Amino acid sequence: MSIRPTLVAAFLCVLGAPGPLAAQSSGVAESIAEFVVANRILADQGVIADGFGHLSCRSPADPNRFFMSRAKAAGLVTADDVMEIDLAGQALDQQGRRMFSERFIHAEIYKARPEVNAVVHSHAPALLPFGVTGTPLRPVSHMAGFLVRAAPVFEIREAGGPDTNMLVSTPELGAALAKVLGQAPVVLMRGHGFNAVGASIRQAVSRSIYAEVNARVLTEALKMGSVVYLNESEAANIAKTNDASIDRSWEIWKIRALANTPKL
Amino acid sequence: MSIRPTLVAAFLCVLGAPGPLAAQSSGVAESIAEFVVANRILADQGVIADGFGHLSCRSPADPNRFFMSRAKAAGLVTADDVMEIDLAGQALDQQGRRMFSERFIHAEIYKARPEVNAVVHSHAPALLPFGVTGTPLRPVSHMAGFLVRAAPVFEIREAGGPDTNMLVSTPELGAALAKVLGQAPVVLMRGHGFNAVGASIRQAVSRSIYAEVNARVLTEALKMGSVVYLNESEAANIAKTNDASIDRSWEIWKIRALANTPKL
Amino acid sequence: MSIRPTLVAAFLCVLGAPGPLAAQSSGVAESIAEFVVANRILADQGVIADGFGHLSCRSPADPNRFFMSRAKAAGLVTADDVMEIDLAGQALDQQGRRMFSERFIHAEIYKARPEVNAVVHSHAPALLPFGVTGTPLRPVSHMAGFLVRAAPVFEIREAGGPDTNMLVSTPELGAALAKVLGQAPVVLMRGHGFNAVGASIRQAVSRSIYAEVNARVLTEALKMGSVVYLNESEAANIAKTNDASIDRSWEIWKIRALANTPKL
Amino acid sequence: MSIRPTLVAAFLCVLGAPGPLAAQSSGVAESIAEFVVANRILADQGVIADGFGHLSCRSPADPNRFFMSRAKAAGLVTADDVMEIDLAGQALDQQGRRMFSERFIHAEIYKARPEVNAVVHSHAPALLPFGVTGTPLRPVSHMAGFLVRAAPVFEIREAGGPDTNMLVSTPELGAALAKVLGQAPVVLMRGHGFNAVGASIRQAVSRSIYAEVNARVLTEALKMGSVVYLNESEAANIAKTNDASIDRSWEIWKIRALANTPKL
Repeated sequence: MSIRPTLVAAFLCVLGAPGPLAAQSSGVAESIAEFVVANRILADQGVIADGFGHLSCRSPADPNRFFMSRAKAAGLVTADDVMEIDLAGQALDQQGRRMFSERFIHAEIYKARPEVNAVVHSHAPALLPFGVTGTPLRPVSHMAGFLVRAAPVFEIREAGGPDTNMLVSTPELGAALAKVLGQAPVVLMRGHGFNAVGASIRQAVSRSIYAEVNARVLTEALKMGSVVYLNESEAANIAKTNDASIDRSWEIWKIRALANTPKL
Repeated sequence: MSIRPTLVAAFLCVLGAPGPLAAQSSGVAESIAEFVVANRILADQGVIADGFGHLSCRSPADPNRFFMSRAKAAGLVTADDVMEIDLAGQALDQQGRRMFSERFIHAEIYKARPEVNAVVHSHAPALLPFGVTGTPLRPVSHMAGFLVRAAPVFEIREAGGPDTNMLVSTPELGAALAKVLGQAPVVLMRGHGFNAVGASIRQAVSRSIYAEVNARVLTEALKMGSVVYLNESEAANIAKTNDASIDRSWEIWKIRALANTPKL
Repeated sequence: MSIRPTLVAAFLCVLGAPGPLAAQSSGVAESIAEFVVANRILADQGVIADGFGHLSCRSPADPNRFFMSRAKAAGLVTADDVMEIDLAGQALDQQGRRMFSERFIHAEIYKARPEVNAVVHSHAPALLPFGVTGTPLRPVSHMAGFLVRAAPVFEIREAGGPDTNMLVSTPELGAALAKVLGQAPVVLMRGHGFNAVGASIRQAVSRSIYAEVNARVLTEALKMGSVVYLNESEAANIAKTNDASIDRSWEIWKIRALANTPKL
Repeated sequence: MSIRPTLVAAFLCVLGAPGPLAAQSSGVAESIAEFVVANRILADQGVIADGFGHLSCRSPADPNRFFMSRAKAAGLVTADDVMEIDLAGQALDQQGRRMFSERFIHAEIYKARPEVNAVVHSHAPALLPFGVTGTPLRPVSHMAGFLVRAAPVFEIREAGGPDTNMLVSTPELGAALAKVLGQAPVVLMRGHGFNAVGASIRQAVSRSIYAEVNARVLTEALKMGSVVYLNESEAANIAKTNDASIDRSWEIWKIRALANTPKL
């Protein structure tokens, strides 16, 4: 979550002054500014196209808390929408705001993965065919080297039985999902979408964007014939290199997102 | 058709003052404002891309009447274009305006389905392959749980013989279509398009948008292998949950639509 | 080429005053205004995405002449770019302007088809797979009823041998193309694109747009299984009905095109 | 790199005054102006969608040097970002700016191909399936006649072994890539992207755009059945003709790109 102070000021200027949360510490203020921009990027890049899907980031001030928007379209999120939530899924200062019912995805992943500081939940259409057919989502683009072990698939029937409403809206279902995720960067959810995690907001957002690109490429490649995937070395090596260059895409994603989503 | 009074004012402000119809009752004024915004959303979301396709909503003042635009592209509809039509397909105050020849789709569905208050008719390309091949359109995205029983297909040759012009432009063809629709939320029309119905404008519009997304996902999933569809419980449960959250997508759909379609 | 006088004024206002040609007669002025708008629509709708592809319309003042832009991207055409060309492909007043080398497509079709008053030449990607595989392009969308007899395919090797540059840049090749077109509304060109013709600019443009949509739908339908096409009656009937409603789509295509292409 | 003086002035006006490099000679100033516009076009046309991918052009003042942006998204490049680099990959005046690690692609191609004056490196998704499946990328659109011999595929494992990070970030890997490219206009990189080269910026950019279009067309055509490709004569002839008409597409690409990317 490295963000230059001058950029923070710019974000706050463009997207509205942060609420009381932001006054707590500069680390928190920076996280919230980054968080708002990231929501706009996810909307602009098609990862979260409508009022569903959500982003969270762990609080830099307290590893047992995370930030998440009130239940609202990512493309409209502002600093005032940011809520602080604990790992039981309870808001610290709800102010009557409606919360996402699937916040337990985030809470349980933060419990299970101490090194994860951001989580994206998306319904992007390109990923869904892999979840409903079991076709392994493996890397054919070097930008998706992080997918080397093939994204695991969460089948909610295994944890919740055949009669769920498909949503991961309890701590138990969240824990089951986190278990299927394991140490992976991405987990597919059958008939629903996927989650991408990262050590930072930028890494989680970047992984969600390139997982989508890789899904589109692989969808077509599979129809052409035998596919050469990145091998384990290639994937691990390029994933590390890409992580060091995320800011280069972030710069243009941010400019486009702020131009294409409403100024509030 | 729940719409906040402050939003109604905003709609009227943006899209022009409503005509005489709007003066009849506040329920009607709200319906018309919502109706105009919904037309713009259908255009902006690609459900109605050109001058064809149309939306209607049942009058809150009289269940035997419904509102529909004059024959005009959805992306250009304003309050002045709204006409009140009875279930025989006759305009109450035509003012020389041209009507959609397929208004009988709407009239006959309102006759057959008392709980339906809104109907979308669309030519969205993603749905058409299902209608012409008989491939069942079933839910692979939880956002389309309402498709659980697979959308029925209206083959106009069965009702109208082999020599129609493909259009449902008579009460008889409308009634035949309504019969194929039965109690379903969506009916495909072979070689033509589809209709989505709802208890409200927002439900009918939302169903048309997510039916399109589901069609795109399923089109690719079918090429990958055996597909796991939502089962009946999952589909029914999530459909109910989604219905309670439509406003969250509506908010961003509306903002985008008003930004992307002409201010008149 | 029916265009309301008030619209002509609006077009001229938006797109620049017409050149000397426009002074000749009001029919010509109207044709040129319509022609400029149609070029912008073809660009905005993706029928002509770059600097290639072109539109022509027969002169209402002389059936042995037609209007065509100088060699220029359709999305940038203004009234000053319009040239009058005879059926031998010679400009009447060239003014040093470069002409499209494939103007013979247009000239020879006007010779062979007296009832044709407009021709579109396009490289739209969705049509090309049909031309290079011989897969019949038949109607699966009622908006493309005009395709009922399947679009013929022009194989330039049959007329020009195996060593052409793929371009229909001579009267001889144009005549061969017109012969393959025959009485059809659309002809595919192998490895190149397609041409759509019409009794008016609006009919030719409309056919090119819906041929593209139909190609996309059919491309996916063919992968799903056995396809039900419109039969001859259905196709002929709906084609006639659609021709009477072109203005409804034209209105929104025009507004979008003028908003999305440069004001010059 | 033919560019009209009046256009150069226009470019500089729109995109900011060039840095010290531009003062060296008018040929260099023109190259830099063209280079900046070309970066914006590559971003706007989807050849370089994010912060990766890059363009270079050989210096008109010294064939052993080339221009390239600092490591930055193509859609944001300005004249101030342009760096002069020698064929060993060293910057002449780095000023602390970060360089693209894959500049060796460019350096080694300039060494091996004296007639090449511009190189595009892209990750465009439509090309990737061909690289990972070995399906030959051959011309089905006459706009891609330059692909007649099928684009060769660079398998980095052959030059770098199974443990690379997929990037061509050394002179040795660059030389191996240049060897696979040979005399071709385009080389695919397995699991990564492609490079297009040209005698001018406009030719390299044009080839990258039409290679992408051809890949999309061929992807669909291959699913339909047996494909008729352009033969050698056709491809060579039309490639030559197209090269003489690049400016016609450039004009609209430039206008769109400057409208759609940030004014800095």
